[in-house]
Amino acid sequence: MSELNQDQVWMQRAIRLAQLGQYSTKPNPNVGCVIVKDGQLVGEGFHPRAGQPHAEVFAIRQAGDLTHGATAYVTLEPCAHYGRTPPCAKGLVDAGIAQVVVACSDPNPLVAGKGIHILQEAGIQVRTGVCEAEAATLNRGFLKAMATGLPYVRLKVASSLDGRTAMASGESKWITGAEARLDVQHWRAISGAVITGIDTILADDCLLNVRQLPDVEDINTVVQPKRVILDRQGRLPLDTQILQQPDTVMVMGPFRPELAQLGVIQLEIQSLESLLRTLKDFQIYDVLVEAGATLSSAFLKQALVDELISYVAPTLLGQSARAMFNAEFTHLAEQLRFKLIDVSQVGNDVRLRLTPIQESI
Amino acid sequence: MSELNQDQVWMQRAIRLAQLGQYSTKPNPNVGCVIVKDGQLVGEGFHPRAGQPHAEVFAIRQAGDLTHGATAYVTLEPCAHYGRTPPCAKGLVDAGIAQVVVACSDPNPLVAGKGIHILQEAGIQVRTGVCEAEAATLNRGFLKAMATGLPYVRLKVASSLDGRTAMASGESKWITGAEARLDVQHWRAISGAVITGIDTILADDCLLNVRQLPDVEDINTVVQPKRVILDRQGRLPLDTQILQQPDTVMVMGPFRPELAQLGVIQLEIQSLESLLRTLKDFQIYDVLVEAGATLSSAFLKQALVDELISYVAPTLLGQSARAMFNAEFTHLAEQLRFKLIDVSQVGNDVRLRLTPIQESI
Repeated sequence: MSELNQDQVWMQRAIRLAQLGQYSTKPNPNVGCVIVKDGQLVGEGFHPRAGQPHAEVFAIRQAGDLTHGATAYVTLEPCAHYGRTPPCAKGLVDAGIAQVVVACSDPNPLVAGKGIHILQEAGIQVRTGVCEAEAATLNRGFLKAMATGLPYVRLKVASSLDGRTAMASGESKWITGAEARLDVQHWRAISGAVITGIDTILADDCLLNVRQLPDVEDINTVVQPKRVILDRQGRLPLDTQILQQPDTVMVMGPFRPELAQLGVIQLEIQSLESLLRTLKDFQIYDVLVEAGATLSSAFLKQALVDELISYVAPTLLGQSARAMFNAEFTHLAEQLRFKLIDVSQVGNDVRLRLTPIQESI
Repeated sequence: MSELNQDQVWMQRAIRLAQLGQYSTKPNPNVGCVIVKDGQLVGEGFHPRAGQPHAEVFAIRQAGDLTHGATAYVTLEPCAHYGRTPPCAKGLVDAGIAQVVVACSDPNPLVAGKGIHILQEAGIQVRTGVCEAEAATLNRGFLKAMATGLPYVRLKVASSLDGRTAMASGESKWITGAEARLDVQHWRAISGAVITGIDTILADDCLLNVRQLPDVEDINTVVQPKRVILDRQGRLPLDTQILQQPDTVMVMGPFRPELAQLGVIQLEIQSLESLLRTLKDFQIYDVLVEAGATLSSAFLKQALVDELISYVAPTLLGQSARAMFNAEFTHLAEQLRFKLIDVSQVGNDVRLRLTPIQESI
């Protein structure tokens, strides 16, 4: 790694601060802020939770009078609008900040350059794009959703080394180990929604919530993802466990009054893409798909997956076992190819993170 | 990693020396030797090639008169027999060495404790088992073959993320990338033989030799693996490329005089296990299986594989594509499970190294 300049060093710290909110700020983005004066840290903060102050507010408070003539590092363009809190750009101006260094600009139409404009109008020197790529990973979903109207979709799959998920009879149990299953909790916890299919609910009666995170003491600080069940034929049993949970469950299928009575949001959707657009309207910007082969394969075939998170268990189940990916491709040219972005050992399993390679059309 | 004591530090150096012979000593084991006097390195060497001096000889030569009262570190028990060279145990005694530290004892019946016995008889203090596990990896095949009569078998497989090797039609090309294919050259180069099936030869007309190694300048220093073709019906065409190569090719199938004329060794075998035992008699201690799904699966199902080296390409070929492992298992209890010993990214592919978990019977 090449040496970091001073801007990068402080921005790295702001990024690490922002990460502290990764499980709790949704639907708001993760933001960190560091205020530096004469080469010394004088204030810092991060956005902990929607409805609570933004990162800049905490940092300004901590710096007190030392904000005058200081430099503020923020991972995301300061907001320009009155929401639950007053605009941070104005707060930085009022605090007498001399320079603002920004990692990512905010594509949210309520901000989108207006924050930087407020700063510059007030005579503050603004530098942008410092550690931009890394800061962008803090808010993949938010940034994508603001830019495209679609959430960032992670698809989790778990299979044997020979690409199988269960025996032909349906006989199955956890293929991957406890460590891999714990690892999945992280992806759920950063997601606004977990999408599954009715067959997975009928087979496993699973909760799909966040129950344990290695780096979180109080699991109640986590904003639980919504659970979204695709149930086109209205087969969801009323006594299923997921309906006993307090967090919102959304069912995509025919309207059932008995579900409405349980507080379940019901939506009719025409396609997976329209489902994703609808979720974005619910301020769900990060989606985790945890489903069987049919639904998972549909997301893949429709090119709706931004990131494939593949857990591979070191076992061979044989060619009669159920395939993890059920496309019927005839020619090699039809294959779905990915770029490997990360591989690591998780317990006795392997986790691959992959992004689809979009072939030029 | 815990701190190394002095014995371990010197033995690590001896192990690194031994590795320099990894591609060229076969069928002899890799051995390194370091001679230390008053805490100073005074001589070192490794066994470079069968027929050339052993590691101890080079180290003693380099140390000259300084061997008197010195300590010798050897990765493998010094030999006790007159072969192409005189016994090294005797050489160490004659050189006036005071202490010998040994990593692995040599299970070769010609040595097997006799080397250590010679040293002790001469009043030399001997310590054994220093860095034994690591030193054993230098000579997995040699050690296993001496102990069991069977070579160490590595099985290389390459598949898509969904466990496929080609389309149903047979349409295929390299699934993995150039880096992964180059990586395979290492496993070939440490092997005494590469085993394949006639179908692979007919499909690819491949050479299965070592053509390039990242850390070897002159490829001619590599002792090429023998190539072994399972051809029970005698279908190997005489104009196949592999027969044009100078290195020995062995064919397991019905006797064909025209192959004998080409210098091909022909053996009749009854089973894969008897094939492996036969190869051991040819002083082939490390075997790499590079074959199609049928032969690869047979090795696996017969529990003849010591290490599975699995290259996974980040692509999905769909459920009609050919399976990498063609067992027809009905119950989950039949699955073949592995312990993951290493995972790494190789280009845009993933390499897993796995050892079978032998279920208790």
